[in-house]
Amino acid sequence: MDHSAEFRRWKAQSLSRADLSRKGSVDEDAAEVVELLNSREEFFTTSSCAGRILLLDGSTDGSGVQKQHCCWMLVTHKPCGKDDVMAALKGATSNAVLKFEPFILHVQCRTLQDAQTLHSVAIDSGFRNSGITVGKRGKTMLAVRSTHGLEVPLSRQGKLMVTEEYIEFLVTIANQKMEENKKRIGRFYNCLQHALERKTISNSHSEIKENNNPLCTHKNKRSQGKARDPSVTEGNGTELEGADGLGVSAPFYLEDD
Amino acid sequence: MDHSAEFRRWKAQSLSRADLSRKGSVDEDAAEVVELLNSREEFFTTSSCAGRILLLDGSTDGSGVQKQHCCWMLVTHKPCGKDDVMAALKGATSNAVLKFEPFILHVQCRTLQDAQTLHSVAIDSGFRNSGITVGKRGKTMLAVRSTHGLEVPLSRQGKLMVTEEYIEFLVTIANQKMEENKKRIGRFYNCLQHALERKTISNSHSEIKENNNPLCTHKNKRSQGKARDPSVTEGNGTELEGADGLGVSAPFYLEDD
Repeated sequence: MDHSAEFRRWKAQSLSRADLSRKGSVDEDAAEVVELLNSREEFFTTSSCAGRILLLDGSTDGSGVQKQHCCWMLVTHKPCGKDDVMAALKGATSNAVLKFEPFILHVQCRTLQDAQTLHSVAIDSGFRNSGITVGKRGKTMLAVRSTHGLEVPLSRQGKLMVTEEYIEFLVTIANQKMEENKKRIGRFYNCLQHALERKTISNSHSEIKENNNPLCTHKNKRSQGKARDPSVTEGNGTELEGADGLGVSAPFYLEDD
Repeated sequence: MDHSAEFRRWKAQSLSRADLSRKGSVDEDAAEVVELLNSREEFFTTSSCAGRILLLDGSTDGSGVQKQHCCWMLVTHKPCGKDDVMAALKGATSNAVLKFEPFILHVQCRTLQDAQTLHSVAIDSGFRNSGITVGKRGKTMLAVRSTHGLEVPLSRQGKLMVTEEYIEFLVTIANQKMEENKKRIGRFYNCLQHALERKTISNSHSEIKENNNPLCTHKNKRSQGKARDPSVTEGNGTELEGADGLGVSAPFYLEDD
């Protein structure tokens, strides 16, 4: 189903709405990707986050899950320093948790085929938890997601459970993940550009032939000898992918690199 | 596209293959869900993991991402004790990381509509990072995924960076997440049963009307006043969901509870 006219209306409505995020604007590192997608007839973005380091303070309900309305003690889309976290922790009175959350993007797509094209780009760029949602009214959404995160409890009922040396160690790792995340966004942008150029040239296909594109190095390493079909079954294996979305038959590795 | 005959063939092939996972069998807490899905014509599972606590030891390449072939020092699908982790850490000589990974399931679906039904069940049960993949050969896969994890660096080049007291604190949280994860699997099973019963009764629809089903409490809390469409756009918001997949317009909360 194409819904071309309806899609154009949804897009116009969506892009004219105020930005409801806390920040009120698109993150700098996500801006290029967002602009490229919104410049195309077949896509529009509905939400994005370039990636962030967060310090949250809140109570849990005994399930290990933090409740609503916990406090944001720190949020940054750039690498941060140990002192930033130490300063923010001074105000934490409950259960503080440091998190790194990678790039996330939601894109509404005109057709399922458009969503498939974008999905392939996302998977090939390392965003292995990406997936499509098809709503009842025919709205087709692609969520670009990764597993590449951190979630580290730091304090219990206001008492810091780690040393300052550990915080420094942790912040170094969070910053490294932030940098890797930024490279993946760059890879995504390049793969996307390439895929859209091909799409424009070849109207009757929405397939991406990127086997020879050195910019999509992530995919090149993984796809040798393997069908480029993210849905290829691995046999009725059980423990398999874990949160990293990696196939059963591969040697166990935590992340695509 | 239905692919009924082709789908039956794929299913027969998949279910007859050997279990390629490390464990070699379906995890106990996932078994009921797997059996229910495989008993239905329109689904078969290709991989699953009930959830696990892992201790991994491996080097990173400077990107904060652990390389291939890191060692599994500990893996358990049940709550564990501080002493288990301390004992496993004795053998760690590199960068040890403790992770909690929640339930993950991959299901091949006969049609896109079947995938949408299952996707709704997954979202309503709290597995908010679930998504559909549609392969080129028409293979439609649903990945059931959650964000409800932990990833905690513990040592640097063999040197433990936290105290035993912290390990105990961390293990408590990991165990709580494991319990919450188990409840979500139960919720998923109940919602799935209900959805499949409805589907059987009402052949012309694949919609799930679960507003009055007390077993799907997760959905009831969230959906009051909101259209039951996982792809409803939140406006052209930017920071939005984060890794938890939560809408922009909701008050900030880390996890569905």
